[in-house]
Amino acid sequence: MNGITDSSKRWIGIDGGGTKTSCVIGDRNGHILGASLTASSNIHSNSHHHVKERLLHLIIDVMQKTDVSYDQIEVIQMCLSGCDRESDKHTVRQFFQGTEFEKKISIANDAIAALYAGTAGAPGIVLIAGTGSIAYGLSKDENNPVRIGGWGYLLGDEGSGYHIGQMALKSVLKSFDGRGSNTLLTTMLMEHFEIQNIQEIIPIIYGDQFTRTLIGSLAEIVMKADESGDTVAKNILKQAVLEKCLIVKAAINQMDEEEMSIVLHGGLFSNDRYKKMFCIQLNSEMNTKLNIINPDIPPVAGAYILALKQSNIPISQKVKNQLREHYQPAADRC
Amino acid sequence: MNGITDSSKRWIGIDGGGTKTSCVIGDRNGHILGASLTASSNIHSNSHHHVKERLLHLIIDVMQKTDVSYDQIEVIQMCLSGCDRESDKHTVRQFFQGTEFEKKISIANDAIAALYAGTAGAPGIVLIAGTGSIAYGLSKDENNPVRIGGWGYLLGDEGSGYHIGQMALKSVLKSFDGRGSNTLLTTMLMEHFEIQNIQEIIPIIYGDQFTRTLIGSLAEIVMKADESGDTVAKNILKQAVLEKCLIVKAAINQMDEEEMSIVLHGGLFSNDRYKKMFCIQLNSEMNTKLNIINPDIPPVAGAYILALKQSNIPISQKVKNQLREHYQPAADRC
Repeated sequence: MNGITDSSKRWIGIDGGGTKTSCVIGDRNGHILGASLTASSNIHSNSHHHVKERLLHLIIDVMQKTDVSYDQIEVIQMCLSGCDRESDKHTVRQFFQGTEFEKKISIANDAIAALYAGTAGAPGIVLIAGTGSIAYGLSKDENNPVRIGGWGYLLGDEGSGYHIGQMALKSVLKSFDGRGSNTLLTTMLMEHFEIQNIQEIIPIIYGDQFTRTLIGSLAEIVMKADESGDTVAKNILKQAVLEKCLIVKAAINQMDEEEMSIVLHGGLFSNDRYKKMFCIQLNSEMNTKLNIINPDIPPVAGAYILALKQSNIPISQKVKNQLREHYQPAADRC
Repeated sequence: MNGITDSSKRWIGIDGGGTKTSCVIGDRNGHILGASLTASSNIHSNSHHHVKERLLHLIIDVMQKTDVSYDQIEVIQMCLSGCDRESDKHTVRQFFQGTEFEKKISIANDAIAALYAGTAGAPGIVLIAGTGSIAYGLSKDENNPVRIGGWGYLLGDEGSGYHIGQMALKSVLKSFDGRGSNTLLTTMLMEHFEIQNIQEIIPIIYGDQFTRTLIGSLAEIVMKADESGDTVAKNILKQAVLEKCLIVKAAINQMDEEEMSIVLHGGLFSNDRYKKMFCIQLNSEMNTKLNIINPDIPPVAGAYILALKQSNIPISQKVKNQLREHYQPAADRC
């Protein structure tokens, strides 16, 4: 095989998000040899021309950095946001037609990268709580992935940062109208937006180009208000957590396993308060034995794990340890 | 006074909405002598140049139709959507600077036209339930109008057609996910949108240029599902009605009157089912004596009533009868 030994073979993992796209290259043992980064690769929010350029450049860049030849590449596993349907995958596959990469490309949704970063390639459910909200589950047979939620800010996103932020805004306006309780959130949001009265929030929200992100970022303020004992904030978080549990329960029901790994992913789970409330509520509602996982490696490493799986390489404890070690700076291991 | 007798004096009323602007001209006794119509005059959703042209043309058109001279015009009362703040009113006033109309212009929000179409110039609350949702109240002293709700589709609009349509969409998607009850709404919405599976609704909703109107129009389907005994639809309407009652109660509390006229306005109230549910709920919750009014004249006639009021002309029973007669075709009076 062109003088390529097992130890010189390479696997590439790509995690494509809404704002950035990460790439790593590694060997069969979990050694990450190089990494590269570019802008968003979502084909629904960028021109196809740009996404094609970015992905090609990303792969060539990581190969050049690590001095890897085309022949050494076994699999290029792309896990891309916005790549849900067969037609989306076909679009991305077309980008590589006629290139040396054509036959090495494998395409999946970015949720799998986040899942495998937590389970190291084992079945489970990844629960995403960022600006949006979705659960994505893979059973043992890996066919028929389960998707719950993820219907976007107008029709879904229950339990997301957007949902929490929107409930906060509605609450302060209801309070202003005299049809809702007083809440600390009013002064906190006025301070946050540097406004003198709460109505001034209207042109800010409707006038912002990135309304979804702006509203999603307010979840942090709701956490602080709850911590200060505000009842309105507490009820908002309670409702968000209940909605999030509904999503997981629906996913678990569809998968029908006796034990289940639940991988937590997304900005909202980096808030300890929200994570704790969620875990307590979920455990209290479920009969299934749950193994709740906070990944210690990033989704791009999950994409790389999937790349190894495509070559039927078992994800041994050794591989997992290698990956973990790569992402934990030496200082942390003292 | 240039030979202008009381009986030759004229008053103009204009009701400017988001899609069309109506105009009438009448005498001091409630005789409507002519009418004219043009497109939207909302200064926030049209170029100022267009609004200026439309309003000027509208007035000149109604005057020409009725052979009325500048000298005969006493007041031109404009009730315009999107004219909330003093700065908005100033903008519209500028359109008429240097014209013969300059000193005859009076500007108010379009909610007052809808209110006066119901109360014939008396105090009360107008409750608007169309795509959006707002309550607007005027007390006896007519100062400090009360506004509750109306915070738009992202932050408010509780109890509106949009709110009902959005709850319907969320419900069918939750049902699809297995985290909500089965509902007739699923097949009804699939038939409505001519789709084979409910997920196809996502690109339709997010891809539509007029998402708010599209979602608002689904309220009609929820009414039908409720009529067929669907529990999910019933709960959606119940929740919408409760939110709508909260809005009225907050308005009533701020106005502190012993008796209150409540004028119902907007597409949602033309649905008897919704109107009945709302009236029963509101009466059951309130101690204040309520006089619920379904206007029998259009808002533009309310604007004309306000024009007469600006000249201190009492809105006598004779005036009211004249207006009512004008808007009820002879056949209805058999």
